[in-house]
This record gives sequence, C-alpha cells and structure tokens, in this order.
Amino acid sequence: MRIGVLTSGGDCPGLNAVIRSVVHRAVADHGDEVIGFHDGWRGLLEADYRKLDLDAVSGILARGGTVLGSSRVQPAHLVDGVERARGHLAELGLDAVIPIGGEGTLKAARLLSDAGLPVVGVPKTIDNDIAGTDVTFGFDTAVGVATEALDRLKTTAESHQRVLIVEVMGRHTGWIALHSGMAAGAHAIVVPERPFDIDELTALVGKRFQAGKKFAIVVVAEGAKPRAGSMEFDAGGKDVYGHERFAGVARQLSVELERRLGKEARPVILGHVQRGGTPTPYDRVLATRFGWHAVEAVHRREFGRITALRGTEIALIPIAEAVDSLKTVPPHRYAEAETVL
Amino acid sequence: MRIGVLTSGGDCPGLNAVIRSVVHRAVADHGDEVIGFHDGWRGLLEADYRKLDLDAVSGILARGGTVLGSSRVQPAHLVDGVERARGHLAELGLDAVIPIGGEGTLKAARLLSDAGLPVVGVPKTIDNDIAGTDVTFGFDTAVGVATEALDRLKTTAESHQRVLIVEVMGRHTGWIALHSGMAAGAHAIVVPERPFDIDELTALVGKRFQAGKKFAIVVVAEGAKPRAGSMEFDAGGKDVYGHERFAGVARQLSVELERRLGKEARPVILGHVQRGGTPTPYDRVLATRFGWHAVEAVHRREFGRITALRGTEIALIPIAEAVDSLKTVPPHRYAEAETVL
Amino acid sequence: MRIGVLTSGGDCPGLNAVIRSVVHRAVADHGDEVIGFHDGWRGLLEADYRKLDLDAVSGILARGGTVLGSSRVQPAHLVDGVERARGHLAELGLDAVIPIGGEGTLKAARLLSDAGLPVVGVPKTIDNDIAGTDVTFGFDTAVGVATEALDRLKTTAESHQRVLIVEVMGRHTGWIALHSGMAAGAHAIVVPERPFDIDELTALVGKRFQAGKKFAIVVVAEGAKPRAGSMEFDAGGKDVYGHERFAGVARQLSVELERRLGKEARPVILGHVQRGGTPTPYDRVLATRFGWHAVEAVHRREFGRITALRGTEIALIPIAEAVDSLKTVPPHRYAEAETVL
Amino acid sequence: MRIGVLTSGGDCPGLNAVIRSVVHRAVADHGDEVIGFHDGWRGLLEADYRKLDLDAVSGILARGGTVLGSSRVQPAHLVDGVERARGHLAELGLDAVIPIGGEGTLKAARLLSDAGLPVVGVPKTIDNDIAGTDVTFGFDTAVGVATEALDRLKTTAESHQRVLIVEVMGRHTGWIALHSGMAAGAHAIVVPERPFDIDELTALVGKRFQAGKKFAIVVVAEGAKPRAGSMEFDAGGKDVYGHERFAGVARQLSVELERRLGKEARPVILGHVQRGGTPTPYDRVLATRFGWHAVEAVHRREFGRITALRGTEIALIPIAEAVDSLKTVPPHRYAEAETVL
Repeated sequence: MRIGVLTSGGDCPGLNAVIRSVVHRAVADHGDEVIGFHDGWRGLLEADYRKLDLDAVSGILARGGTVLGSSRVQPAHLVDGVERARGHLAELGLDAVIPIGGEGTLKAARLLSDAGLPVVGVPKTIDNDIAGTDVTFGFDTAVGVATEALDRLKTTAESHQRVLIVEVMGRHTGWIALHSGMAAGAHAIVVPERPFDIDELTALVGKRFQAGKKFAIVVVAEGAKPRAGSMEFDAGGKDVYGHERFAGVARQLSVELERRLGKEARPVILGHVQRGGTPTPYDRVLATRFGWHAVEAVHRREFGRITALRGTEIALIPIAEAVDSLKTVPPHRYAEAETVL
Repeated sequence: MRIGVLTSGGDCPGLNAVIRSVVHRAVADHGDEVIGFHDGWRGLLEADYRKLDLDAVSGILARGGTVLGSSRVQPAHLVDGVERARGHLAELGLDAVIPIGGEGTLKAARLLSDAGLPVVGVPKTIDNDIAGTDVTFGFDTAVGVATEALDRLKTTAESHQRVLIVEVMGRHTGWIALHSGMAAGAHAIVVPERPFDIDELTALVGKRFQAGKKFAIVVVAEGAKPRAGSMEFDAGGKDVYGHERFAGVARQLSVELERRLGKEARPVILGHVQRGGTPTPYDRVLATRFGWHAVEAVHRREFGRITALRGTEIALIPIAEAVDSLKTVPPHRYAEAETVL
Repeated sequence: MRIGVLTSGGDCPGLNAVIRSVVHRAVADHGDEVIGFHDGWRGLLEADYRKLDLDAVSGILARGGTVLGSSRVQPAHLVDGVERARGHLAELGLDAVIPIGGEGTLKAARLLSDAGLPVVGVPKTIDNDIAGTDVTFGFDTAVGVATEALDRLKTTAESHQRVLIVEVMGRHTGWIALHSGMAAGAHAIVVPERPFDIDELTALVGKRFQAGKKFAIVVVAEGAKPRAGSMEFDAGGKDVYGHERFAGVARQLSVELERRLGKEARPVILGHVQRGGTPTPYDRVLATRFGWHAVEAVHRREFGRITALRGTEIALIPIAEAVDSLKTVPPHRYAEAETVL
Repeated sequence: MRIGVLTSGGDCPGLNAVIRSVVHRAVADHGDEVIGFHDGWRGLLEADYRKLDLDAVSGILARGGTVLGSSRVQPAHLVDGVERARGHLAELGLDAVIPIGGEGTLKAARLLSDAGLPVVGVPKTIDNDIAGTDVTFGFDTAVGVATEALDRLKTTAESHQRVLIVEVMGRHTGWIALHSGMAAGAHAIVVPERPFDIDELTALVGKRFQAGKKFAIVVVAEGAKPRAGSMEFDAGGKDVYGHERFAGVARQLSVELERRLGKEARPVILGHVQRGGTPTPYDRVLATRFGWHAVEAVHRREFGRITALRGTEIALIPIAEAVDSLKTVPPHRYAEAETVL
C-alpha cells in the first residue's frame, strides 16, 4: 500500500512518535510505502511531500515538534480544497492519508472522508478536550510541565508569603488545571467549565491564611471566567500590543485577590512551555500505539475513523464522535478535586 | 467516623499521596478522625499508631516512600492475626481500615474482610500486575525512571558500539519492559509472559547489525526466561552471596548474545531505583483519586472492595477480582510493540 | 559554641542545604548548639527563634525554600537595629551569627560586623551577581530551569514558525540569560550590561530567516534595555495593575520584532519558576560546602567575612569585597557567546 | 583555515556540544573549513572523514553521544601511526586537529604534538580526574544522574529498612562518589583515594541505627578497596562471565555489612547510565566554551595545549600538565564531606 501522513495544527509532544510508528508499522512490517506531506494540509493541497523510510524516522521518537512541519491551513480554506486533495491522492497513488491533529484537523479529515476520501485520523491535543478518547498524547506532558512548575513555585510562594495565581493552558476546558493542580496540591483550581465566584474563591484562599498558613497557590485555566456579576472582568482577551495571551485571567485575579485578602498576590503565566519538547514516556507509548493502529485501520480499509484510547485498548471510532462535542471536565471530577481546594 | 489507614509491602511512589488524600477527604470534608498504623499490618496487629490530622500530611504529596512506614508482616503470619485485628478495631473504635498495598496486602485485606471486618483496599504495584484495574499508581513512575535510563544508555551503546541488555523490574509480568521499551525505542523487548527463543532474539538483533546499525538496546524483564531447550539458563536466581537480584537474566543474555553476535554486549541492571522517589504527576493524581474514593466507599459502607481505575473513572471492585489472578501482558500488546522490535 | 543562623531575602534553591550543613558541622562534629532565627533578620531583632538539632534538619537537603522562613526586614530599618541585635546575641549567649542571603543581607551583615558583632555571612543569589565568589548556589538551578524551558520552547517555535522572545531573570546582570541561552543554543541573547540596538538585533534574527530557518529564540534578561534612541521603550516597569513584572522588555521586543521582521513573534516570561524548588546537585554541594566553611570560620573567630568559591576551593573573603560592586558579565564572555548569536 | 576535529574514547555528555561550538566559531565567525574524522583517531589514521558545515551540527547541542562516532584506536597502536597522521594532515591541507577525549586521547595528542603536528586538545571525562582543569564537561551530568538515583533510593531504603550500597563510577578517583554522595546526603562515602577500614565503616553505619534510624545509604566508587588486612576482598575484578563490572566492591560490601550489622543490605550498581544522554546546562556551557577557545588557540597557532577551566575563565595549558598525573580527591575534601558521613 501507499500511505500519506501529515501533522497539522499547534505543537504537541508525541507527533514525531506517531510519524515514526506509522512508518515502522507500514514500511517494516507491511512493506508499504509512506510519504510525509510538508506543513500539514498545505503539503497535501500542494503535493509537497517527501518519502519516509526507516532512516527518515530514526531518532525522532523522543523529539518534540514535528519533522514534517505543520501549519494552520485547512482544505476548507480553498474553494477547491477537497478536489485538490482528491486529485493529489490519485496522482500520488495513495491508498490512504493519516492526518494527525486536533479538533480543526479532525474536522477537515471528516470533510474529506465525507467526500469519499480514504482517511484515518490520529487525534492530538495537549488540552485533553477531544471527545471519544480517554486521553490523547501531549496531555500527560503538558500536565508534567505544569506540575513541575507548580512544585517549584510552592517554595517561592512560601518564602515570599504570597498568593501565586498560576495560569495554565486550557481555553475551553480545565483538564490541565485540574490534573496539574491535583498533582501539585494546589489550594484552589479554577476551570472554564465552572465560572468562578470571586467571593467564594476569596473565602477559600482566605480560610487558609486564617488557619495560619502563609501562602497559597491558585491554578487557573486560561479560559476561566467569573460568574456573571461576580467581579469586573476584561474578557477582551487582547492587550495594548494586540497579543491575546496577556490580558489574562491570572493577572486580573491577582489584582482582585491582593485587594480583597490584603496579601501580596502575583500572577505567573506558564505559556508555550507547556506544549513543546520531549514527550513523557506515557505520551510516547500512546502516540506509538495510535500510529500502529492507524496503519492497521488503513489495511482493514476502515476509513472515516480516528484512533482512540478506551481503558487500556486502542479503538477506532467514527470521526464524528470526536468532533461533534468538546470533552469538558465533568462535575464529579471537581468533587474529587475538592481534596485540594 | 473513625478510619485507620496503613501502607504495607515494598516501596511504591504515590503511597504518601494516598495517605494525604484519605486524610484530606475524611478529616477536612467529612469531619472524620483518621489514625495511621505504623509499619503496615504490624501496626494494626500491635495497635501501634498515631493520629493523622491535616498538619500530619502537609507537604507529603510529592514525597516518595511512606510516612507511616511499611513492613512485610501479614495478619496470616499470626495464628490469632484476624482476631487481634478485630480486637484492635473495636478497642480503637474504628469504623473501617484502609490498607494500601500490593497483592499480598490485598490478600490479607480479603482475609480480614471475609472475617467480617470493614475493609476498603487501595491497590499499589509498580509492576502493573494487579487485575481489575487498568493501572495503579507507581507504574507510571517506574516506567519513567526506566525510560530515562534507556534514553541515556542509547547514546552510550551507540558510542561504544555495543549491545546493552537492560534488565528492568517485573518478576511475573513484562509491563515495565513493554512500556519503557516502547517509550525508548528499544530494539528488542523480552517479557516473562513469552519465553524467549535465543535464536530468534539473536536473529532480531543481528538483523540490525546487518542493516548497518552499530548498536542495539534489548530490554528484558527480570523474570524473563528462555523457551525450554533454547539455551542453558541458570534459573536458580541466587548468586554466590545468596542475593537473588544478581543472577539475572540480563547477565546470561549478555554472555550469550556476545558469543553469538561477535559484538561486545553488556548487561545493565536498573534495580531499586525504579521503585522509589517522587511520583510522576500521573501517579499523584491517580493516588489522590484512589484515596478520595476509598473514603467515599467507607462512608457508603461498601466494604470488601478496592479502588480501581476503569477508563477515566474510579470504580470499587470486589477484592477477589484483584487477587485471584495476575494481570499479564496480553499477546496483542506484543504485536503492537513489534514496531519497536 | 553557640551559633545563630538565619535566611533573609528572596527564595533561592540551596538555603536549606546551607542550614543543614551548618547544623551537621556545628552540632555533630563540634558539639556546638545552633539556633535558627525565624523570618530572617526579623527573628534576630525580635529574638524569635528555635533550637536546631540534627532531627530539625533531617530530610531538608534537597527541599526548596527555607525551613526558617525569610523576610525583607533589615536591621537598618530600625533606629536601634544594631543595638537590638547586639542585645539579643548577648542574651542568647551566641558566639556568632551566620546570615544567609543576597546583597541586601550581606550589607546588613557588614553593618553589624562593623559594629563589632561576630558575623560570618553566606552569599546567595540566583542572579550570580555577587562579587568575590566565582558563583553562588541557586544560579545553577535557575539556569537549569530556564534551559529546560528553552529546550521545550524551541520545538514550539519551530512548529509554529515564530520568533519567541523569552524573558529570564536578571535585573542588573545577564548571567542567567547568557548561560541558559548558551546551553539551549538561543539565536540571540540580550543582557542588561550591553544596551541593545534594535536594528542589530533585527538584522541578527533576520539573517536566520534569510538563511531559510523558520523560527528563532531570543533570550532576554528582564533588565535589558535598548541603546538610547534605538527604539521607543517604556522603562516605567509597572503595568496598569501596578505590577512591575509585566511591563517587560520581552513584550516590547516582541511587538517591535514582529513589526520589523514580518514574522509572528511572541513573548514568554518565565518568572518565579526560576527561583524555587529542588536545587541541582551542583547547588546542593556548593551550599553544603559553604555551610561547613562558615562554621569553621566561626570556630577560627574569623568574623566579618563571607564564604566564596574560588576555583575548586572555598575561601573566606571580607564582606566588603562582595557588596561594594556588582559582578556583571564581562565583554569577553559576550564574545564567547557569539557562537550562539 | 582548515581544521579537523575528532572524538575519541568512551561516551561523555557534551561531546556534540564541543563539535558544534568548534564548527560555529570556525565556520561562522572565522570563515574556516572544518572536517570531522569518523570514529576518533581511526578516522584520522585512515583519512575517513566528512565535511562539517553549520547544517551538520544543527540540533546536536543537547544530544548525548557523538555524531562523529568514537573508538578506542590510538595512533600509538600503529607503528607508523604518527606518520600516517602527519601524512593525512598534509594531504587534507589541515592547519590543525582538535581531538576531544580523555586521558588516553590526550596522551595521543601529546605524542602527535611532540612530533610537531599542530594539535589543540579538549579534555573530557565524566570522572573529573584530568589534572590542570577545575572540571571538565560530563562530570556534572554524571553527578546529576547519580544524585537523582540516590534521591530515589533513599525512600526505598527507608521503606524497606535496608542498607543500600550504591556503586557509582570512578575507577581511580572518588569525585562522582563524593559529589553525588554530598548532594544526596549519603550516610557514608567510600572513595579509591582512601582505602576503607571495614570496622570504621561498620561503626559509622551502625551508629546511625543505634540513633534510631532505620536505613542507610552508602555511596562507593567502583575503584574503592579495603585497607590491607581489613577484610577479605576479591580484587580480581572479573566475574564468572568475564565481565569486569560485576565483581564489584558494592556486592562485597553489601555481604559484609549485612553480616556485621544484622541488617538487610543490598548493592545497587548504577553503571553506564551515568555516562550517556543529554548533558546538563552546566556541561553544555562548558563544552561550548571549550570548543570556542580551542578554535581561538588554533588561530593563535598556540599548539600542544588543551583547554582548561580555571575559576570562571578558560585557559590553554600544556598537554603535559593534564596527562602527567591524575587529579584525585584531596584529603581536605573528605573532611568537608564528613558532614554527610
């Protein structure tokens, strides 16, 4: 068989592990040919690619980033996107294409699949918000980076007798905040799924100081917002320089908590460091399994599906299951986390 | 309510996280009292314990080991073990006891439970061989330590143009070997579940050299054995000093592979370093959730059960499910790993 | 003998290692008594302290923060500060006090020493800007944290085809920027010692893109400033919320480089994470040696001095040598770093 | 100019950082040409090499191993070794060769230099036993790996109430044992420079148990030996399989301490994991500076020298200074470490 692979969307630890696994399984075990499109969908739309043999993926398992490059181009951006893709698949004699990417990528995959093209997707997201799979690669690494930072910040908060409000990734969901906050023993965790009440949050942190503690760590997902009417909040999302990342919830919370508690409070924004670099062993194993099963699905001609972790097994589920809704933190998970609130 | 907690058996990253979580949930949320028995079952059998309040568990979330101590004492070791336990529970006014431990500990828990004592267990094993739960805390950390070592050994094997045979933990199951081997891109993985054929292994590694590669990494679980008749093998397990750890499979394999391949081969035995120290964030979250759910089970008086991970949720399953069989690596997982063989 | 010890100023990995070493050497080897003042100079000024025996320092070697607490109180803040210190030393029967801290702390130590009090200081700074010593503990850890972040950010910058401007600590000196930038292979390093010319910096980064590279990493010390007239620069240092950390050089550089290069540029501010948490082995060894030698100096009644690393040996140097000037990055070190520019 | 570079001897984190730095400085700054010989001296003796441009060293700064390969071949192994080297330097039009390696490599460098060939060496050793330089790259990484293992082993030793005897690298010197032992707070450190008295060691560890402690960690360098007559000791160094690494001091000590103390004792041999993988930031900076200064020495035609760290500066010292003696741990450093004994 002849298989194309591409990586699309933002950086995510484990992309190279998937590429390597696809090549290992397809080339070494099945005797397939694999080509890699450059810069995501752009490569498919412009037939810009290179051959991937075993040497091409040597040494990349633990490397961050993607050797194929990425971009945010989508087939839907072009009026003839689907037809160009169809044309290039035919020209290149490809039996299937394996796009690796997040929600946007999987929606594009569905579009192509609905148009009859042979597609098997591999989901990636550091945010853990893709439905249908217990988890995807990248999330464990992101939680690891955030937790290590929180571990370090704890001693600083304590030495400086401060409240630190630490903003982690998560525009729509609070998974990274929840898991890193639980792992590091944060004193409050604020997630987008449950708009926060500033009075409650102040009370929670304040109780700690009343109990004689001298510092507190609040973890907040970047997409968290106050309950309507709870506090003034600039949801605009852009700062004076036009950058969205910096008008953040952590800074606003820090001002508000300092004023209300009478304690020095400081925001810390972890930022991009959560989405790059070497994947954890957990993510490498999951990415490797996803790549293996994607190739198997291609050989079974089971198209229109993505790989998914279900318990300890890898399943192939319809793309629609993954893209029709967002996987948010369910309320009973907040309850469990109250141990750290 | 009044709850006793104890940790029993070998070291495992995450024990302190469970203890802390039990205390947080029980004391802070339910207003319970918690006592911790010293040195595992010994503490229960001798009523040796201390009170655990919130301060007692402050700062232990990420710390390796167990603040309560451990031992390999079991109630079944004493003719009146069960009755002593029953007596102390009554004397101390305990509504339940939460033992945290591995297979042996859970068997003891079952013994007490069958005798009518109120027990909710929390499984721990770095080996990942406890049935009924997708995984337990400790395993992710062990895989992490082994993978980091393998990552380092790769450059050394390459520089020295050697075959390194790396022995990881796993007397009965190959989970650590499989996952660390996949995560590090080992060139062969040898597990106890599938006795190895030395000819096949030699051929597998030899093929790599024929393809021009100059080194190889073989990961072998300590309990792996050759197929009957495949090679001479000293399964005695004890060296001249009476220590079981050192008459290992890695050393024997190393001699054999060196002889057969004509390449320098060296064994590396990772040993105890895999079972101690700071747990990974993954293990901290899982341990915390286990502790929380164990307390909830106590409050629901759902005894004779242990906590278990099923997909993304924590379930309470009968102790018997966990101790009646060992969770071994299933054959289809070997297949997946052939990508790295 | 009877010795007092205190930690003053901001958090710095290795403080606990010094405390532990002082106690080990003094109590275990010399049979001294050691007391620890709470919250830095405040504890000395208010005679707020506790006894430190071997148990009190058990397990703290690798822990971040300080078990004694810290504050920014200085004897000079009180009109009778020196006399209160003298009085408490006499009352408590102390033969010497060992303050552990940065520039401010050492200036206070000098004040007390000039007034005849028996003081041996131990310098700490993550910034590496204390003169007279090759390096102090804390710096290696800070460089380690910054480098790990830069390693991760590289793959993200590459995947997103961006310029990342990473702000590291260093108000007055560029040591952390220089070392982490060299260690991570940054493409430009900007330090306070050499005001930058925005045209030169743009040219440097631009040359990379002209050579076909698709991303760049610029490391900038928080105290870096443009050459006069080079670009508009808000040196105010406070944002609309009154927080100094956010009106940073990285944000301004990011806007300017994006405009000039026509490439997406983003600032990343590493912040407090650089100054907390577990010290590196290097810092633990250095901190331990400093504590040991401080006790020896006390026993030799060699007061008015601080410990210092000179090559591979620990020397005792006059406090004045350390506080009279700042240790800045010398020009020939820039030259060496041009390999990474 | 035209410069050749080669890496020789065992693996050592930082080799690639030196190679990269040589190429950056020589090619980018001076406009030189650089070639890299394959597999150490073998490449020079057989004129087996490749051109190294900037692309060839892209991305290797933090990678373990050596992209040029290594071997233990030395010019002195061939009767015409020096003349072959001279001939190939002439044929290839090389103005200088920069060998990077340990004691054996530097001796070979001296041989060539004495024969009039233009050589500037760069010392490498994880053991820190090369004289004339405060330290070389590789040592900090080795200490880091050993310390991390010791940190983990502590909780296991404690949970299992054992004495762990941990063998670290160091055939002739105890630097890694000393620094990792100090960094991890080991309870005894045994180095080759001071043959140990088994009675003293037993007493030291025994005192700990008498004081109520339940475990102990002993760090021992692989080359440590007992004082004559102190205990029976098999110094043969080879096990029944002919492997030198396994008839180690740790195993013998473990048997002896278990017998004498009546406490379970276990050996742990860290092995090769100490010499591979990603270098620490400290080692990357040092390796980068060494490479830079080696090129500068070539341009100054200052041959017959090696780079050395002296305090905070890089010096060029005669090769003889480095190879005429071994840098051992001086007695006053043991004294400092008594804080951890």
